Amino acid sequence: MSRVMNFSAGPAALPLAALERAREELLDFGGTGMSVMEQSHRGKDYERVHDEAILLLRKLLDVPADHDVLFLQGGASQQFAMIPLNFLDAGARADYVLTGAWGEKALGEGQVVARMFGAEAHVAASTGTGDGKEKSYTRAPRPAEVTADARARYLHVTSNETIHGVQFGADPARPVPTAPAGIPLVCDMSSDFLWQRFDVRQYGLVYAGAQKNIGPSGVVVVLARKDLVASGRKDIPKIFQYRTHADANSLYNTPPTFGIYLVRNVLAWVDAAGGLDGMRARNLAKAAAVYGAIDAAKSFYDCPVERESRSVMNIVFRLPPGLEDRFVSEAKKAGMVGLKGHRSVGGIRASLYNAVEVAHAEALASFMKEFARANG
Amino acid sequence: MSRVMNFSAGPAALPLAALERAREELLDFGGTGMSVMEQSHRGKDYERVHDEAILLLRKLLDVPADHDVLFLQGGASQQFAMIPLNFLDAGARADYVLTGAWGEKALGEGQVVARMFGAEAHVAASTGTGDGKEKSYTRAPRPAEVTADARARYLHVTSNETIHGVQFGADPARPVPTAPAGIPLVCDMSSDFLWQRFDVRQYGLVYAGAQKNIGPSGVVVVLARKDLVASGRKDIPKIFQYRTHADANSLYNTPPTFGIYLVRNVLAWVDAAGGLDGMRARNLAKAAAVYGAIDAAKSFYDCPVERESRSVMNIVFRLPPGLEDRFVSEAKKAGMVGLKGHRSVGGIRASLYNAVEVAHAEALASFMKEFARANG
Repeated sequence: MSRVMNFSAGPAALPLAALERAREELLDFGGTGMSVMEQSHRGKDYERVHDEAILLLRKLLDVPADHDVLFLQGGASQQFAMIPLNFLDAGARADYVLTGAWGEKALGEGQVVARMFGAEAHVAASTGTGDGKEKSYTRAPRPAEVTADARARYLHVTSNETIHGVQFGADPARPVPTAPAGIPLVCDMSSDFLWQRFDVRQYGLVYAGAQKNIGPSGVVVVLARKDLVASGRKDIPKIFQYRTHADANSLYNTPPTFGIYLVRNVLAWVDAAGGLDGMRARNLAKAAAVYGAIDAAKSFYDCPVERESRSVMNIVFRLPPGLEDRFVSEAKKAGMVGLKGHRSVGGIRASLYNAVEVAHAEALASFMKEFARANG
Repeated sequence: MSRVMNFSAGPAALPLAALERAREELLDFGGTGMSVMEQSHRGKDYERVHDEAILLLRKLLDVPADHDVLFLQGGASQQFAMIPLNFLDAGARADYVLTGAWGEKALGEGQVVARMFGAEAHVAASTGTGDGKEKSYTRAPRPAEVTADARARYLHVTSNETIHGVQFGADPARPVPTAPAGIPLVCDMSSDFLWQRFDVRQYGLVYAGAQKNIGPSGVVVVLARKDLVASGRKDIPKIFQYRTHADANSLYNTPPTFGIYLVRNVLAWVDAAGGLDGMRARNLAKAAAVYGAIDAAKSFYDCPVERESRSVMNIVFRLPPGLEDRFVSEAKKAGMVGLKGHRSVGGIRASLYNAVEVAHAEALASFMKEFARANG
């Protein structure tokens, strides 16, 4: 068996240790004589895994007691709808900061729900340019550019945009925006959750699809302040109320047990690999290698993203005309896959999530230098 | 490694062949150098699995071309909300047939959505008895007892109730109700999907959480008539519109790829094991063994469900006072687990989903006979 270097944007590389652990006990979990996915979600063997995953998240992120940790389904895309469903009322407004395609989608669902309830969803800041259907985004706004309304029910931010490679919080000059006093900050961290520490106390609600940094697809982690959860609407379907899942420790209905088990395996690996300080050092080293290769061949590689907004997770760049397909196919021959840019923007994208090895990023950087030399 | 006999109500036993196949390629799927859960959901390697799972469902069930086959998230519980969200408008009504706790939950979410939209959700038939919060259900209604309104937007039925052990369609005297002409029949088949053939053409929409008969939790299969999908509301969040998922072949957002892969493995096993005729023969043999043990010791075991409504999937019964805990613990010593009844009704429950071996049901029946002899 030969494992490739996987730079996919998600679903993405998982730590080998987490997968090997799963393989080892796939037919017999912990001596129970069955797979973890054959266990009742109400049984003590599964619940131990479930609770360990929650405790690991609490430990790694220092989640305060007044925040719930939830495992939900439906991806971040479902959170785009659940958030306004829970928190918008007639006459209320929600504010959105746009730095890429995912923020646009969150706003889109926010607008639909706002229309359902006689509320409003506004753009508090956008760095999008261009008049077409597909806007271009090359930076995160500076703090002064974000003007959230003091009456907003929440301020929504996307901390990392996978398609455009724009990130808040990687450079001190582009911190995640703060919300006005009393306004909950809601953040889609799907693609940069757990890459480094952050202060959970500053957020009303954080959500993250697992399939980038912490597990397989089909699981969403939500960290939500308890008073915010309690303030949500009660006249929407139970399954969409955060309180339903908070009250039931995410066991209201059958959770995606195998996905949560794998998240547990990945979190245990993060913990053993130095926690979030370890992840940060690892991720900065990887990003430095690949951005270094771009900057070392500036006339050949072009990263459209402004330096302060460059994503540590998803590095997007373009090559001279006609060379991108060759880049992808030669990289594949060298054992590097998942490098094609998103179909909506083209170009090359190297995703360097937690599980991608430093050696893989260095191998990519070496390949890029050699490719530029040979084709430049 | 020693595998137990797993009679859990779900998540439940999976076919050993499906799990072994997953273990074999967990680190390297089809020579790609990565796990199937590390693959992009837009890549050809994953899409082949996704499409094969859909084709297997179409083949096994003879799904007509005018029905979509979808893979969604959120369990059957989310379908309880999505169905009325898509199909109820101001002034509309939906009708529900209640034969147990799951139908009650579906009705509950239907009532919430009805209030949101100025519509109504009605009980077209119920076999529930008792005045308390927990009603008792011991039978499915006869066809003449179901009076659906000719103006209903849909008629909702739960074909098998896991907690009460009540099933439609196992005995010819209790067929799944038919809806009045022009009214779509909507059916929750979570716990008896694929146990035998059924005519998909008779249904507007069928849904089934995977974690009983066809895979792990976190995947829901939906079969929906295309004109019904097209008739759904367009003013609700995109993620909750069936058309969104139908238009995108269930790849609108990242699907639970590993779960769908495992469903594929289970469906391939069903196909190899004689398809639905094979499953039916297997399931009837298992149910005959366990009901036979109950009927052979009538003064000891009591199945409260009327004969024509007895579930082939979930067999519920009671023992004389004080003996149920001993039954469960002695069964466990004999390698049989998952037999404790649902916490809301107590007693014993043996779930005999597709993956449970005939030999396991026979072993349970022998154990029951011996236990009745020793304790009767």
